[in-house]
Amino acid sequence: MLRALALARRGLYTTDPNPRVGCVIARDGEILGEGFHARAGEPHAERHALAAAGERARGATAYVTLEPCSHTGRTGPCADALIAAGVARVVAAMQDPNPQVAGNGLRRLREAGIQVDLGLQEAEARALNPGFIHRMRGERPWVRIKAAASLDGRTAMASGESQWITGAAAREDVQRLRARSSAIVTGIGTVLADRPSYTVRPQQWVLGDYRDHGVPPVRAPLRVILDPALRTPPDSPVVTAAGPCLIAHAEDPTASEARREALRAAGAELMVLPRAIRPEGDREAPLGVERRGLDLGALLDELARRECNEVLVECGATLAGAFVQDGLFDELIVYLAPALLGTDARGLLTLPFARMAEKIPLRWGDSRRVGDDLRLTLQPTASRLRPSALA
Amino acid sequence: MLRALALARRGLYTTDPNPRVGCVIARDGEILGEGFHARAGEPHAERHALAAAGERARGATAYVTLEPCSHTGRTGPCADALIAAGVARVVAAMQDPNPQVAGNGLRRLREAGIQVDLGLQEAEARALNPGFIHRMRGERPWVRIKAAASLDGRTAMASGESQWITGAAAREDVQRLRARSSAIVTGIGTVLADRPSYTVRPQQWVLGDYRDHGVPPVRAPLRVILDPALRTPPDSPVVTAAGPCLIAHAEDPTASEARREALRAAGAELMVLPRAIRPEGDREAPLGVERRGLDLGALLDELARRECNEVLVECGATLAGAFVQDGLFDELIVYLAPALLGTDARGLLTLPFARMAEKIPLRWGDSRRVGDDLRLTLQPTASRLRPSALA
Repeated sequence: MLRALALARRGLYTTDPNPRVGCVIARDGEILGEGFHARAGEPHAERHALAAAGERARGATAYVTLEPCSHTGRTGPCADALIAAGVARVVAAMQDPNPQVAGNGLRRLREAGIQVDLGLQEAEARALNPGFIHRMRGERPWVRIKAAASLDGRTAMASGESQWITGAAAREDVQRLRARSSAIVTGIGTVLADRPSYTVRPQQWVLGDYRDHGVPPVRAPLRVILDPALRTPPDSPVVTAAGPCLIAHAEDPTASEARREALRAAGAELMVLPRAIRPEGDREAPLGVERRGLDLGALLDELARRECNEVLVECGATLAGAFVQDGLFDELIVYLAPALLGTDARGLLTLPFARMAEKIPLRWGDSRRVGDDLRLTLQPTASRLRPSALA
Repeated sequence: MLRALALARRGLYTTDPNPRVGCVIARDGEILGEGFHARAGEPHAERHALAAAGERARGATAYVTLEPCSHTGRTGPCADALIAAGVARVVAAMQDPNPQVAGNGLRRLREAGIQVDLGLQEAEARALNPGFIHRMRGERPWVRIKAAASLDGRTAMASGESQWITGAAAREDVQRLRARSSAIVTGIGTVLADRPSYTVRPQQWVLGDYRDHGVPPVRAPLRVILDPALRTPPDSPVVTAAGPCLIAHAEDPTASEARREALRAAGAELMVLPRAIRPEGDREAPLGVERRGLDLGALLDELARRECNEVLVECGATLAGAFVQDGLFDELIVYLAPALLGTDARGLLTLPFARMAEKIPLRWGDSRRVGDDLRLTLQPTASRLRPSALA
C-alpha cells in the first residue's frame, strides 16, 4: 500500500478534478503490475496496473488507495475489470467518499467472491485527496490559506516592501501548493500592490518531483480575484497569464462597461457575488480592499460547483483575516522566516479582536524546515458549520 | 561521556556561578563511581566520582565533561586527586574556557603519565555552560531573550490582556529557563503592567527533573529592573519576593529620596547606569518605557562583574527590541501558541525598521513542541562585537 500511495502522489498535480489514486498488483511479495491515475479522461490506476500485470493478475492481490469504481466511465467500472482479471483479493485504503456510491465497488467485488479488506493506511490515503473528499460529500472545497512571515509575524515593511521574506526553497514549495490546487484566490489589494501572476512554473521544481518517471504537464489552476469594485487593471499579469481567470465583483461595481469589456477581452471571466453580511466595524481597510467584502461562502459554493477540490488563498492580511474570521478555511500554512522585522512592519492577519477570548484557536499539523524557513501547518480546532454547497 | 553529561545536567539549576560538570569513572564498561558538581563550595564532580570508586579507581578511566581543575580550591586541584587515585586515562569533553588555566589541568595529568583525550562530545559539553564559557573568556553573559506569542506574532491584546497566550507546559518550561539563569532582566513597563515576581517555583516541575535523585534547592536568580526614572512601586512583587533585586536607573531619576529609601527598605539594591546612545527616533514609547533607555551593554558588563553566567530577558516589546537592536543577545526563545490574535494585538519586538535590508537575520536552533505550543530557539547570525566585560 505504501507503494500504491507513492504512485498516487505522482498524480498530485494533474488528476484534478479527479482524485489521486495508485494501484499495485502483487503476489508473494512480488509486484506484478502498478499504475496511477494521471489525468481526467485517462485510465484509472487499476487499469494501468492490470495491463502491466497481464495474465499474472489471476489469483493476485490488488492494493488500491481508493475503492475501485462501480460506475461506467469511458472504460467500464474498475471493479468489473478486477473481477474479469481473476484477482483473488483487493485491499482498499478507503471507501469512495461519494455517499451515493460508497461501498458499491467493494460490494460488487465481494459478490464476485473476491476477498476485500478496507482501511489499510486510510489516513494517508485521505490526505491525498482532502478537497475531492469534501466535494464528494457535498461540502465546500478544501481551503488552504498560505502566508509567509518573519518570526515576529510580519509579512512586509510598512511601505509594502516584501521581497523577500522567505527563501527560494519556500517559494518553490509554494509552487507545489499552487500546482495541486484547483483554484488560487487573491484580493484586489494584492493584485494592485504586487502584480502577481499566480502561475505555476514547474520548471523550477518538477524535475526533482518526477525524477523517476515522465513529467506530466501541469494544469493551470483557476485564478480568482475578489474585486468588489472591479478595479483590476486589464493588463494585470494575473489576468493576462496563461490559464483561466475569474474576477468576482459586487453587484454595483464602480467600473465602467468599457473596463468590463477590456477585462473580458484580456481573458477574464466576470462574476457577481453578494456582499458579505460580516460586520467589519469601522476598521480602516488597507490596500484599498473595501470595508464590506464579498461573501466568501458564496464564492466557495461557486468554486464547488466548478468542481474545485483544493483552493489556495494567497492574499493580504485583510482578505486572509476575513477567511479566518468566517471560519472558511481547513488549513493554514505559514512559512516562517528566521528574521525579525519589528512592530512597524505589516501583520499577518487582520482580525477585529479586542479580547483574548476572541482568539482563533488552531491545532498543529506538520511542521518542518523548508530551506532556511520553517513551514508550519495548522488546522482550525473549532468545528464549524459546513453548509452543503451542492444541496 | 553521555552518562557524565547527564550527571552534569543535574547541577543545571544549582552550580551557578560555577559550571555544570559531571564525571564517571569506569573500567571495561563497568561504572565504578560517578558524580556531579552540585553547588559552589561543595566538591567537584571528580571528587564525588573518586570517592564512590574508592580503590577501584586505580587503572580506570575518568570521563569528565570539563577539564579537571589545576588550581587549589577548598579541596586542592582535581587533577592532583585523579593522579593520586591512580587513574590510567582521563577523557575530557572540553578544555577549561578560562584562557589563564586552559590546558593546565590536562598538562598536569599528562606529566603524571596519564593518557589524556580531549573533545569527546564537546558540543554537548559546551551547551551545558554557555554563560560560564563567555564569562571565563572575559565576555559578557550569555543573554537569552524569552518571548511568548501567537502564531501571528502577537504577545497581548491592545488592552494589554495577555493571560494566557501559551499553555501550562510552556509556562513551566519558562520556570526552567529562570532557574538556570543567574539573572532575570525586565523593564519598568512590564513591572507596572503585569506586576510579575519572576520567582522560580520549583514545585511545579522539579519532581519530574529530579525523579531519580535528591532535589537540590534552587537558587533565586538576581532580578533586575531597568527603570530609568525609578518608578518601581516599592510593593512590587518583583521587589518584595525572596531573593535579590537590583533596580538600574538613570543618573537623573525623577523619584524622590523617600521613594529610594522605600525601595531599599523593601530589599532592592539601586544602581546608576548611563543612558544609551542608541538613537530611538521619535517612536512613541509604549507602557511608559522612556524613549532613551539605559545602556544595556553597561548593564551586561555589571552583571558579568557580578559573576552572572546566563541572563534571561523577560520583558515587553520595547526593551526586548532594544536588546535585539543593540545586538546584545545570544539566543531568542519564542513560545509560539497555535492561535491567531490579529493585527490589532501587540507585537513581539519594537524595531525601528522601514526597509527590508534592516531586518535582523537569525538562524534556527532547536524547535520542539512544549505542550500545545511550539518552542523555537534562534541565534543571531551576524557576528557582533563582544567587547570584553572584564578587561
